[in-house]
Amino acid sequence: MSAPYTHKIQYYETDMMGVTHHANYLHFMEEARIAYLDELGYSYARMEQEGVFSPVVHVSVQYKQPTTFGDELTVRVRITQLTAVRLLVAYEMCVGDSTVCIADSTHCFTDRSGKPISLKRANPQLFELLAARVEG
Amino acid sequence: MSAPYTHKIQYYETDMMGVTHHANYLHFMEEARIAYLDELGYSYARMEQEGVFSPVVHVSVQYKQPTTFGDELTVRVRITQLTAVRLLVAYEMCVGDSTVCIADSTHCFTDRSGKPISLKRANPQLFELLAARVEG
Amino acid sequence: MSAPYTHKIQYYETDMMGVTHHANYLHFMEEARIAYLDELGYSYARMEQEGVFSPVVHVSVQYKQPTTFGDELTVRVRITQLTAVRLLVAYEMCVGDSTVCIADSTHCFTDRSGKPISLKRANPQLFELLAARVEG
Amino acid sequence: MSAPYTHKIQYYETDMMGVTHHANYLHFMEEARIAYLDELGYSYARMEQEGVFSPVVHVSVQYKQPTTFGDELTVRVRITQLTAVRLLVAYEMCVGDSTVCIADSTHCFTDRSGKPISLKRANPQLFELLAARVEG
Repeated sequence: MSAPYTHKIQYYETDMMGVTHHANYLHFMEEARIAYLDELGYSYARMEQEGVFSPVVHVSVQYKQPTTFGDELTVRVRITQLTAVRLLVAYEMCVGDSTVCIADSTHCFTDRSGKPISLKRANPQLFELLAARVEG
Repeated sequence: MSAPYTHKIQYYETDMMGVTHHANYLHFMEEARIAYLDELGYSYARMEQEGVFSPVVHVSVQYKQPTTFGDELTVRVRITQLTAVRLLVAYEMCVGDSTVCIADSTHCFTDRSGKPISLKRANPQLFELLAARVEG
Repeated sequence: MSAPYTHKIQYYETDMMGVTHHANYLHFMEEARIAYLDELGYSYARMEQEGVFSPVVHVSVQYKQPTTFGDELTVRVRITQLTAVRLLVAYEMCVGDSTVCIADSTHCFTDRSGKPISLKRANPQLFELLAARVEG
Repeated sequence: MSAPYTHKIQYYETDMMGVTHHANYLHFMEEARIAYLDELGYSYARMEQEGVFSPVVHVSVQYKQPTTFGDELTVRVRITQLTAVRLLVAYEMCVGDSTVCIADSTHCFTDRSGKPISLKRANPQLFELLAARVEG
């Protein structure tokens, strides 16, 4: 599991219900996922520069508690599955001791033109790095 | 099923991959859901003024094809389930004849303070209106 | 002046103050500016495909009245100045008869790599099209 | 002048031009402004809880250099003017040693209903705190 990534909820992330708009949690997931890659020593920017892209093909998000402006959200990231062509990532988001949101995202791998590729073949080093971090 | 709702993809909705950023599809779902309520003759604004809120408690989004700036996205909305305390909505998003995204959202009902309520009891008129539109 | 461009304020564009978050008006300006180019018969997408980009180098926005969810915003666009290397655009945004926001944006022209170029030289056809629309 | 506030540019903040979309700089200004109030010991949340709101009535933003995903933006905030009814804030945003954006925002003060108020009368403590920080 990743070190906890922290995102402080901004005013512009709230809506007129007075809470964080639900679409923003996909931003928080992306931020935490990218920070996790940095932590592994392989930045997302480098991955793209080397010609590997990982578009999101599926997300599932369960909102358990609302959050609002000023809340310190911590996001923990786990890689739950990796094949040559698919990556599954799970997220747990908390404010203090409360779990406020649970989510997962599925990614494929493509080249610059959007054509699906095998990560194992295209970038074995990154594949091994991720494979070593798969958790149940 | 709703009349197709149209959203033209904006420049600011794209990201450096050259495609619509995946978080924006939750915006498109919200736009289409709200337009559907308008179509049913019961605006979301009126619903909130009358003290019923319907926060999103879950979303699942499957991205099938990327879209980009200038694309005319059509969103079709169906209510797939309704109980006194839960609403399920399904979405199909197309560009031309291609289905680019399939999604669903689950909503609960709360009062202004965020306390869960029964829609059936709190607003029977709206409940019946929605119940009459449930599709398999 | 352009035909009025309409943007309906979305729920996700509001903030916890209950009004449209001020950053979104830059989105509305971009939408209206791009629709105006479409109206002139020269789409922004085509302009970029032909290698001309027009980044924003300055904006000034005066917020006169708040707007909120459900408001129908109409945006009128005028080109107020054009030189070989600079474009100035003015915006008036109304809800009904009330002017809610007045703004302007300044654009330069660049090639794909971000290097400043002369629009007059790079795309004389577009330059003439815009030049014919300059209003005081 | 405030301590430098840091914002790391996120993937979702870029657009298809490959750079940070210009509307997001209004978010960065808001983040830095709110962090500055925290630094002064008077949080924005507390200010609103005590019934004082400070909507943006004008912004002016000069974009000097593009930024992109992964850039560490530092924002420095200065209060340049304060009257009973108006606050002017100036921003300098840098990446490394380069100034990438210069901006200012003007705020009025209102009560919860949006009616203009005098900060000096409504919250003399906050007024004095801000007045002591005005810089040329």
